[in-house]
Amino acid sequence: MIVSTIASHSSLQILLGAKKEGFKTRLYVSPKRRPFYSSLPIVDDLVVAEEMTSILNDDGIVVPHGSFVAYLGIEAIEKAKARFFGNRRFLKWETTFELQDKALEGAGIPRVEVVEPEDAKPDELYFVRIEGPRGGSGHFIVEGSELEERLSTLEEPYRVERFIPGVYLYVHFFYSPILERLELLGVDERVLIADGNARWPVKPLPYTIVGNRAIALRESLLPQLYDYGLAFVRTMRELEPPGVIGPFALHFAYDGSFKAIGIASRIDGGSNADHWYSELYWGERLSMGRRIARELRLAEEEDRLEEVVT
Amino acid sequence: MIVSTIASHSSLQILLGAKKEGFKTRLYVSPKRRPFYSSLPIVDDLVVAEEMTSILNDDGIVVPHGSFVAYLGIEAIEKAKARFFGNRRFLKWETTFELQDKALEGAGIPRVEVVEPEDAKPDELYFVRIEGPRGGSGHFIVEGSELEERLSTLEEPYRVERFIPGVYLYVHFFYSPILERLELLGVDERVLIADGNARWPVKPLPYTIVGNRAIALRESLLPQLYDYGLAFVRTMRELEPPGVIGPFALHFAYDGSFKAIGIASRIDGGSNADHWYSELYWGERLSMGRRIARELRLAEEEDRLEEVVT
Amino acid sequence: MIVSTIASHSSLQILLGAKKEGFKTRLYVSPKRRPFYSSLPIVDDLVVAEEMTSILNDDGIVVPHGSFVAYLGIEAIEKAKARFFGNRRFLKWETTFELQDKALEGAGIPRVEVVEPEDAKPDELYFVRIEGPRGGSGHFIVEGSELEERLSTLEEPYRVERFIPGVYLYVHFFYSPILERLELLGVDERVLIADGNARWPVKPLPYTIVGNRAIALRESLLPQLYDYGLAFVRTMRELEPPGVIGPFALHFAYDGSFKAIGIASRIDGGSNADHWYSELYWGERLSMGRRIARELRLAEEEDRLEEVVT
Repeated sequence: MIVSTIASHSSLQILLGAKKEGFKTRLYVSPKRRPFYSSLPIVDDLVVAEEMTSILNDDGIVVPHGSFVAYLGIEAIEKAKARFFGNRRFLKWETTFELQDKALEGAGIPRVEVVEPEDAKPDELYFVRIEGPRGGSGHFIVEGSELEERLSTLEEPYRVERFIPGVYLYVHFFYSPILERLELLGVDERVLIADGNARWPVKPLPYTIVGNRAIALRESLLPQLYDYGLAFVRTMRELEPPGVIGPFALHFAYDGSFKAIGIASRIDGGSNADHWYSELYWGERLSMGRRIARELRLAEEEDRLEEVVT
Repeated sequence: MIVSTIASHSSLQILLGAKKEGFKTRLYVSPKRRPFYSSLPIVDDLVVAEEMTSILNDDGIVVPHGSFVAYLGIEAIEKAKARFFGNRRFLKWETTFELQDKALEGAGIPRVEVVEPEDAKPDELYFVRIEGPRGGSGHFIVEGSELEERLSTLEEPYRVERFIPGVYLYVHFFYSPILERLELLGVDERVLIADGNARWPVKPLPYTIVGNRAIALRESLLPQLYDYGLAFVRTMRELEPPGVIGPFALHFAYDGSFKAIGIASRIDGGSNADHWYSELYWGERLSMGRRIARELRLAEEEDRLEEVVT
Repeated sequence: MIVSTIASHSSLQILLGAKKEGFKTRLYVSPKRRPFYSSLPIVDDLVVAEEMTSILNDDGIVVPHGSFVAYLGIEAIEKAKARFFGNRRFLKWETTFELQDKALEGAGIPRVEVVEPEDAKPDELYFVRIEGPRGGSGHFIVEGSELEERLSTLEEPYRVERFIPGVYLYVHFFYSPILERLELLGVDERVLIADGNARWPVKPLPYTIVGNRAIALRESLLPQLYDYGLAFVRTMRELEPPGVIGPFALHFAYDGSFKAIGIASRIDGGSNADHWYSELYWGERLSMGRRIARELRLAEEEDRLEEVVT
């Protein structure tokens, strides 16, 4: 069996994990990224192409990640002939505020407060969030007094949230249909260009994500997060049958209590930051990418591949 | 032999470490935290109870951590029938300023400057520290001009320190009576709600600890820290015989020189952040929790259990 | 064969890596650092001396790191009888702005903008960089209006750069002559005293490096960095034959695009922060120190030691 994906986002851990679990690997890569990816012994079959669309007809198991929707579009993915790891209809749930809210509300997970622009107070801070995943770029912090002017230039769908000064945590889950178990595999924080203000505050800086750092969360916070994960899995089983298969993430602001700011309805880039929680379930360190491959191997061994592939 | 602890703080690494060293494990957990802890294959015996007091009569080896004093009280722990890993009389040394100062001063470790409120200057910054370990919450930064007003509302014991702008480092040690060796096993920094000011300074935020990140310390700083650790072990041998057994931590502000701000007289939560220094001593990655279990195994093999248990 | 180095900077990973690859180890250490280093089972032969010069006649393979130039001087190293891992004439390339610029320009790597002091604008921020590696200390951020005054007190060579608010990333490479392969082994960010401003901005703080944190870089940024690494290796082959052998680092400011701020022409201290990218090449976690030892072992096995030693 061959595991296939597109070169970007979290393809390194997906292919490394696949190799470690004994699969062959195939990577679709654009020509300008070839030198890096071709230097890596984890790629068995390198498909160099300007467009990524040929993966839609791949004859292996395709593992989607955060660049798939941007490269291929939801519709093409849902109609593709190729077999995808996970529930491919779940992929769209992160792409609009409406679907995200429906999922989080269904699961009873508290959310960040959304503010109508006309209710904004001049001297308070707001966070303008652009719809859909986009590496964070485009989002910005703004004072109420400048809100109207800044919003007038936006061409994309957005919403205004109360800004929460505090820590932002990204929690990485894996739901296994084979083991019927939810695993909490890691927590990260984003490294942003805006973090440049940490050394000397200069001016509002872009919220573009540059990377991720693993966080060992205070243990007393984990049971609550696990409950949120369980509720999310239960809700999605009803909202998008057969529900979540494999990786997803819940994104939170924390200022003393958790307030959801979004979800990832696939492997989240923050799982690129190596974390040790997988040892709790497996006695060894598994990346999220390897956890996906492990699930494929378990499913194959029990002849239940159709339960983890759509 | 069975290793027992309470579900919180650093119980995950304690139980995972115990399993890896070949012990059975028992975990005391409150009902609301059951879903998370019961999902983990590292727990052999899950004791669900509203109160944690039954651990005081446990028939295994109890490994105490940072939630023990809060849940059980120092007196109950000191009188308990159960056998504890480490010197249980050492546990109280972090609970008051007086004991902390006595230990640090005895070891000749430089400390942060304590300021009498009446000597505070209006335009300088001070750090008000609440006595005892409490996940950092309650502490705050304040300007001298507002100090008197803020102190008047405090109901708990506190003290006022000169605020040190710089890096805060938490250094994790293990003293092995079996090997007669002090090991420096890791360094972390805390992730605080107050770190929310890194992206855009808003207002004073809570000092509540949310998690931990591992730091690879500049190597040239390690010998000094190791010397502080050695001096601390020597001092505690006199102050609280037989002295430190197993894990402890020294907490520092660093602005070009180290200034102690506190200690942990048990496994510190910051050791939840995975660190590689254990490889220097063991050739493999051991968490502090596993290091405890390793010491128990070594002691058992040499029939010297009474040297590491009280 | 014995691997030798000086106790500091990155000697822990160098010796640990050498042990894991099956070599004997020798460490030159000053008397005041003896307690820490003598406690570590990774040192076979501990040479305690006030001066480090005896390493220049060592009969093993000397692995240089960031403290070598400060302790021994470039000239003494270039003339030494001892055999050094890597191209010892490459070591000087990080020591002056002129050589750094020549290498980066030759490789076509974009650099931070250098500003003539008289062109500085009063209300903009500038970064004054002191020449040569020095753990970051001495560098400072300053407003244009105060630039002239601050520069007048400096006694060391410096230059003035436009300050880039954003993320600072340090990228760790290894070029293998044996495998003819460039490996991108990790990315870190520095932990600075100046980061103390993250919790509450106080005042300009020292840029002294205290430690390092690993960063999982956004995967889409890696191919570009790898191309920079390849170009650097190609350029150095011409500028300083036989070119780079083993570890080097490229240092960048990132505010949406990469701007080089410097290089390390040897193992960089930031590789002390454990990173997982080595698994992509080796299927197992190798520190940079162990990667050096691995290259020595491969070279020895193929009787090609002279290709990696000068």
